[in-house]
Parts: sequence; C-alpha cells; structure tokens
Amino acid sequence: MPNVSEKGKHMPASPIRKLVPYAEKAKQEGRKIYHLNIGQPDIETPSIMMDAIHNIGLKVVEYSHSAGIESYRRKLISYYQKYQIALGIEDIIVTTGGSEAIEIAMMSCLNEGDEIIIPEPFYANYNGFSIQAGVKVVPIFSSIKNGFALPPIEEFKKVITPKTKAIMICNPNNPTGYLYSKEELQSLKKLALDHDLFLFADEVYREFCYDDREYFSIMHLKDLDNNIVLVDSISKRYSACGARIGALISKNKEVMSVAMKFAQARLSPPTFGQIAAEAAIDTPDEYFQKVKSEYVARRNYVVEQLNSMEGVFCPKPSGAFYCMAQLPIDDSDKFCQWLLEKFNHNGQTVMLAPATGFYSKPELGRKEVRIAYVLNLEDLKHAMECLREALLIYPGRAVENPREAVSQ
Amino acid sequence: MPNVSEKGKHMPASPIRKLVPYAEKAKQEGRKIYHLNIGQPDIETPSIMMDAIHNIGLKVVEYSHSAGIESYRRKLISYYQKYQIALGIEDIIVTTGGSEAIEIAMMSCLNEGDEIIIPEPFYANYNGFSIQAGVKVVPIFSSIKNGFALPPIEEFKKVITPKTKAIMICNPNNPTGYLYSKEELQSLKKLALDHDLFLFADEVYREFCYDDREYFSIMHLKDLDNNIVLVDSISKRYSACGARIGALISKNKEVMSVAMKFAQARLSPPTFGQIAAEAAIDTPDEYFQKVKSEYVARRNYVVEQLNSMEGVFCPKPSGAFYCMAQLPIDDSDKFCQWLLEKFNHNGQTVMLAPATGFYSKPELGRKEVRIAYVLNLEDLKHAMECLREALLIYPGRAVENPREAVSQ
Repeated sequence: MPNVSEKGKHMPASPIRKLVPYAEKAKQEGRKIYHLNIGQPDIETPSIMMDAIHNIGLKVVEYSHSAGIESYRRKLISYYQKYQIALGIEDIIVTTGGSEAIEIAMMSCLNEGDEIIIPEPFYANYNGFSIQAGVKVVPIFSSIKNGFALPPIEEFKKVITPKTKAIMICNPNNPTGYLYSKEELQSLKKLALDHDLFLFADEVYREFCYDDREYFSIMHLKDLDNNIVLVDSISKRYSACGARIGALISKNKEVMSVAMKFAQARLSPPTFGQIAAEAAIDTPDEYFQKVKSEYVARRNYVVEQLNSMEGVFCPKPSGAFYCMAQLPIDDSDKFCQWLLEKFNHNGQTVMLAPATGFYSKPELGRKEVRIAYVLNLEDLKHAMECLREALLIYPGRAVENPREAVSQ
Repeated sequence: MPNVSEKGKHMPASPIRKLVPYAEKAKQEGRKIYHLNIGQPDIETPSIMMDAIHNIGLKVVEYSHSAGIESYRRKLISYYQKYQIALGIEDIIVTTGGSEAIEIAMMSCLNEGDEIIIPEPFYANYNGFSIQAGVKVVPIFSSIKNGFALPPIEEFKKVITPKTKAIMICNPNNPTGYLYSKEELQSLKKLALDHDLFLFADEVYREFCYDDREYFSIMHLKDLDNNIVLVDSISKRYSACGARIGALISKNKEVMSVAMKFAQARLSPPTFGQIAAEAAIDTPDEYFQKVKSEYVARRNYVVEQLNSMEGVFCPKPSGAFYCMAQLPIDDSDKFCQWLLEKFNHNGQTVMLAPATGFYSKPELGRKEVRIAYVLNLEDLKHAMECLREALLIYPGRAVENPREAVSQ
C-alpha cells in the first residue's frame, strides 16, 4: 500500500472542526449545543442575493473567466471605492472564498522554505495553507494583556532572516477581534519597505468595526503598491460563507500575472456564487447598520458576562465577531471536549474553539478559548449561563490566583 | 520590490486560454468565432438543476460540511451504484470542481520531488497542478497513429524510478477522446501492485462513451482499493462547468483522512453548486440519451470532415467530446493564433487548442490541434468550412508528402 505524503501527515486537523465528532455525539444524546466555535453567523444573507439566485436565467451554467465574471469585477471596483480603495479591473482576481485567495497568494509570492511572519494567535488555517505551500510560519507573540495589539516592530526585526519573504496580518483580526490602527499599519509599511517584504492582509471582516473606530486598510498605505496583497471574501460581509466567493487583490502586476496562471489552472470561481455576490454589492446600507448594531450588542453582552465570571479575562475587541477569553482552566482542548462529552446544563451545553490551534505552540493557548458571537442574544444568554456553570464544576478548574485555587 | 515565487514563474499559462486576447480582438473587429478550443459544452444544464437553484429556501448561505453536504454525498452513492461502483459515504469528499480533487489528491499522495507517470498528450492543467504540488510529471508518449491507445506497459516500466509514486490516466480521455479498455486498465493494475503505486483516474467524461463500447472504471478493478484515487466532476456530466462541483473518491482510509485535512483548510465546497448537483442526480435518462446521440452526430460529422481535408488525419475517438487532429501545418501555436489574427471567412473564424500544451515537449504537438465538438451541428458546419479554407491559404502550410508541399 503506497504511503500518503509527508505534507498530508503534517497538515493540522482544523482546530475549529476537530471537536465536531463530540458535538455530533452530544446532539445524538439529545443535548442542545450553542455553537460559539465557528465563524458561521446566524445573520440572514441579504434578500437581494437570494433574489439573484432565484432569478438566474442561465440555460448553460458555464465556466466564468478565470479572474471572475467581468461585470462582477467591475462592480467590485465600486464596492472598494466606498472604502477609498481605488482599484482597476486588472487588480482583482475573484477566488473560491478567501481560502483560495490565501493559497494563491502564498504560492505566487513565496518559495518552498521561505518564511512568513504572522502575529499570533492567528487564524488556524494560515498554518494549513503554509504547509501546503511549503512555507514556514514565523509567529510573533501578541498578548491578551493588551488586547492583542500589534507586537513592537523590534520583535519582528528580531526574527527577520534572508528567508523572510512576507508579513501577514488579519484586520480586523480573527481570532482576537483586534482592529489595527493606522499607526500600526504604517510601522509595518516601513518594515516591509526596509526589508523588501510582501505585506499580506486578510480584511474579510472590514464591515465589522465598532465604537466609531476608524477602519484603516492596508490598501490605504501609500507607495507600497508592489508589496501589498489583499485577501478578501464575501463570506462574513453578507453572511454567505457557503457561496465561496473571495478575491485576491494586488497592484503588483507581476504577482497578478503569476496568480492568474494559478487561477487558470483551476479554471474559474463558482458561477452561482459570483452572480449572488454581484447582486450583493447593492445591499442597502441599512442592512449593515442593523447587522453591526446587532454584533455590538452581542459583543457587549458576551464580554461583560465573561469578565463577570471568576478568573475569566476577556479584552473588549473593536472588530470582527470574535473575542478571546482567558479561562481558569488547565487545558482548553480538554475543557472544550469536556463541555461536549460531560457537561449538561438543563439539557444544554456550549461549543467553543480551544485557542491551542491559533498559536504556533499549543501551550500558549492552553488557558484561552475563542468565542464567536454569532448567535442571537437569547441564545448567547443561555450559552453564557452554560459557560458560567461549567467553569464552576469543571474538574480541571485552575484559578490563576493561588489563593482562589480550588482543589480538583 | 519583492520577487514572485519560482513556482509561479514555472506555472504554464493555460494553453486553452492563452489565445483568449487574440480572440477578444477578433470579436472587437466584428468577426464571429466558433469556439472549438475549450470543453465548454453548449448543451443545456438539466432543468431539474436550475429548478433546485430557483427554489433554494436558505435564509443563511452557510458553510457546508468540509466533505460536502451529507445528503448530497448519500445521493452520490446511488449515482455510482448505477455504474456498479459501490461506495460508502466515507469514501467521498465533495470538491470545488474536478480541479480541486486533483490538487488534493496530489498533495495527499505525493511528496515534493515525487514522480507521476501520465500518458501524453494529457489535460494541460495536470502540469499546473503538478508544479503546484512540486511533483514531476513523467510522460509516456501515446501516438495519434493508433488513436492514442495506452502505450505498452514496457514503456511505463522503463521510466519507473524510486521516486515514482503514481500513475494517472484520464478515461475517457481529454484531449484525445480515447476510451481505455478493460484489458488496458488491468495491465495498469498489475503495474500499480508490482511497484506499489497510486493509480489516479480522472473519469469526468464517464457519461460520454460511444459506439456501445463498454465503460470500464478504475473502480471496477478488484483488490486495488488502497491504490485507487478517483477524480470526478459534474461539469461535463450535466453541462454545469460553472457550478464547480467535483469529488475525490478513494477507499484508502489513510488517503481520505489526509485529504480531509486539506478539505478542512479550505472550509467547504460551494453550497449553491452542491444543491444543484444533488438535484441533478435525478436527471432523467432521456437527457443523457439525447445528449449522447447529439455528441455522436457531432463527432461523426467532425471526424469525417477533418479526414476529408487534404493532409489531415483524425482518429475516431470513442469517448468524451474531443478529438485530436494532425494538420498540414508548420506550428499549431502559430496556426491557431493566425486563425484569430488574420483569417476571415465570410466574417467568421474558428478557435482551436494547439496540441503543444498537451505534451511535455511542445514540439510533439506542433502539428496537432485539439477540437472540442461542443457546438451544434450547424455551427460545426461553419467551423469546419472555416478550417478547410484556412488550411488552403495558411502561409505555414506544410503537407507531409513533399510532392504536395506548397511554397510559403
């Protein structure tokens, strides 16, 4: 029997999805699970998108252009204009989700063995895509203590080697919800120019910036066109994760020409999703206002609840729909599994994402979990009740302050 | 300015799409182009698929399971049963087109530097996916003289090295239309077992086998479960190329477990396409009978026309909707470009795929083109008229028989 590949062996199982079998078992046993483990919002997809799908008049569902349907790309230009991002049609390749945009960006810009610096904790699949591309992720630790702000540029400089080819950020950040400031991005710009590095930014949560904080895109940095690669997706923007439509954006013509060859090899992004995405650009502003105020209410509630639990610390994030919480536990993997396997609060439990999968070294995330506030307030209330109860009786409870430590 | 990757530089531009800029110019000039260059059929997508899309009742377009919507996978089992292929739900991962199935299969089974043997001419994108995975394609020459039958197994044995990890075939074949026999597949089975190799088969043209020839799948080979990886797609089956739905199928549990990690990293295949694909499984047999007899009529017409042109040779294929023709020309790249740039027959021209892109060495395809008979008979008539006229006046005409050679 022939062996599978080394890459395949080293690919991490999704930390967000690896608990799924336990969740399935809990469901079979009749327990209700509140899913705060995955960025799958309960928000309705805009009706304008669904109408476009219902009214598709195609006789033949053809391949689209490998860079995406031209009318969609043209309309995307107007979408970005609203954010003061000036693009031409040649700067955009429509991809199959943000995932494919990351894959193509990595394959286009980095060689086998090259290094990419990413502040951690980071979106777990960056690891997977790096392994696919044979690229080494060099993490820079950002701390829950200051809400996961960009680590000092000195920390980046320390790890730059001749193999360093790119820096990647996610802004607003998944999993931390942190929103990078203009100043932070400008310091990254200087670093990229000084060391001739690509600067990748995953900005799929652009629509979700709170507290009147300014959204500053990587694309707003001046005189950095040849270094910047933007990764985007409609998944969160329109609560349309299943449409699998994203975009790879750069003004570096060589990058786009190479990326286009990878795009041609896979023929085209999904036609149905593109049709829906094109219609979605006309989503009225009220939709986003409503969604945003809903997320703000959820965030406020969840963060307040978490910080009111003994031994829990949760910085208040300014973007996306995630927060990271430090819990008084021995091991987040064990705790999240225990919630599904053993915990039962009035027939209910809660599913969280252990932070171990968001760090390069699992031990850094042993006491942290990521919470996606993607459920309505009523459900969040039950979920927080579950968590509060669970933390009281979890056998691996380990309060940081030794005076408060309870025996196990 | 940071450099793009070496892989990116080495990726081939799609030979099928590289002439597109010339075609766009010809269209702007007002010439009608008959597109025989790409496997994009004009056949209507089954109405049952479009109805499913029109009636989608989703409120939230969610991610699906990374292996695909469960009900779709279950229904796929019944689809394969019709072809005497017995599968369990755990043997199927739904992919974003056949393209992604090939990508994941290569990444899951082959290491950087490993070799995969593929009879040539082969589907050009196999090259691209191999470069992506860092895998070396070792071609085995199959000849137009015997209609591109499987080369003798001795030829395979000659190129097997310690790095050889897999053999790949496309059956029925793109670009040749060749349908492999049971005996040919059995000889490959012996080879795979003797040398412990994976046997990949791309069978996306399964529905298109003609002349009452038996369709023999790689999955029909007994006692080879751990070596077999099947790549599939609904693109051609239902003329739904833009849906981007395929499948990776294997009974090798280790392969599937590794493939699942790659599938998880990209989250899920497109939801809309999967809904359409699930509905498509109920497409009535009459649809396929009609489509098949249409393709047979087209094939018969095209092959007859081609062989009646001076200096042209085109073996009659038994499957898919392609044929390869040897033309009396100097260079198929130049000829196909000339057709778009210079040729005008009553305001019309024809677009073909130069065979250079289907061979490991372009010189092997200098005198051959691939013709996709994906247009209706009336259009094919005009297209063949164009080709007949073009061959008479093409400046690079080079009839094989020197007595007939005309001066350029």
